[in-house]
Amino acid sequence: MSAPRPITVLGGTGPEGFGLALRWTLAGETVIIGSRDGRRAQDAAEKIKQRVGANAKTYGNENVAACTAADLLVLTIPFEGHAALLKQLKPAIRPGSIVIDATVPLAASVGGRASRTLGIWQGSAAQQTAELVPKGISVVAAFQNVGAELLNADGPVDCDIIVCSDDPNANQIVRHLATKILGARAIDGGKLENARILEQITALLIGLNIRHKGHSGIRITGLPDAAYKPA
Amino acid sequence: MSAPRPITVLGGTGPEGFGLALRWTLAGETVIIGSRDGRRAQDAAEKIKQRVGANAKTYGNENVAACTAADLLVLTIPFEGHAALLKQLKPAIRPGSIVIDATVPLAASVGGRASRTLGIWQGSAAQQTAELVPKGISVVAAFQNVGAELLNADGPVDCDIIVCSDDPNANQIVRHLATKILGARAIDGGKLENARILEQITALLIGLNIRHKGHSGIRITGLPDAAYKPA
Repeated sequence: MSAPRPITVLGGTGPEGFGLALRWTLAGETVIIGSRDGRRAQDAAEKIKQRVGANAKTYGNENVAACTAADLLVLTIPFEGHAALLKQLKPAIRPGSIVIDATVPLAASVGGRASRTLGIWQGSAAQQTAELVPKGISVVAAFQNVGAELLNADGPVDCDIIVCSDDPNANQIVRHLATKILGARAIDGGKLENARILEQITALLIGLNIRHKGHSGIRITGLPDAAYKPA
Repeated sequence: MSAPRPITVLGGTGPEGFGLALRWTLAGETVIIGSRDGRRAQDAAEKIKQRVGANAKTYGNENVAACTAADLLVLTIPFEGHAALLKQLKPAIRPGSIVIDATVPLAASVGGRASRTLGIWQGSAAQQTAELVPKGISVVAAFQNVGAELLNADGPVDCDIIVCSDDPNANQIVRHLATKILGARAIDGGKLENARILEQITALLIGLNIRHKGHSGIRITGLPDAAYKPA
């Protein structure tokens, strides 16, 4: 058995990050919740411990300290805080880290609708991240399409997680993380440039949730079994 | 029982249009295949008749004649021929028609990849269509995400069809058409502007098909039952 590799969820006090932290804690992972406010991060970790039980390996810390404590970093912050946080974290990101970006550039970030996205010069929020992290850091786009309500509910999620990265090894590691979420299947979605499609799918799902009063997700059909499992 | 309302599939000699024409013929609909070459359209209709049987109500004709023969018009043409065909058809589109656009502006149209889309000034191919049709004609985006291989295979398709339009009545009519495809569920995806997301999902699915050697589709999970059925 390999040594436990902690996961830091930046923005883990928000509903999406909290839900991911909860799911990974349930799967036995070590999770560090990062927040601007270290106290709020600890409170969130405490909530997860109360829900999961005494064995939960979940901690909270201020963003920069949380960043230095792990080399699997998950970004679940609103798009309006995305670039500023990355600039702040840049010196704290450990060499060899994987930055997993779940951010969606919803138009709500600038006062618009959550069912629309902003156009990002680089193509997607995840590609913007790739420009902002230190050289040699792998960026992976994932988890945009599994909603906070699904993650925070009990039981399996009915959702596939498409994972995009220019680093096939990082892609595989993140697909393993994705399959630790009960019910989720993980699919290699190719290069990081495809993140733009994942981000827009979230806007579509939010629109469907509003229109039909549900908590939607997506499943990809028609691929061979091996496509749904990390090697 | 209402009078049969024929469906014209423009580009129905191509694999996507042929597959839709086949599925609607199987469901007992009257289908007219349109093509630049009326003879090829008739050949395609003949093939469908051979496959479906003597009761098949499928016909073939040159595009303009096919257009005047129905008020449900489905565009399944490669994007490079999209605007030119619409300009040619414009005088032939009957008042009150519904134009259903399944076109995806794949970068393959200009020599690029089928797993990437072109940026369309109006936002999507379907919104470009809305600019090119006569005033008062309703445009509906649908069927981009159900692949030709699925449509042309036997048995049910494992795929949902998201339908977007600024005309709720036209949206409902097209959702009824969608549910005539065995296995498909139809979901109101909101305004026509969301067509941009449907079109990009196709590029993602094509990329997944190449990467994983499958015939992918999407299912939307987590919505109430009523969301999957036209009223």
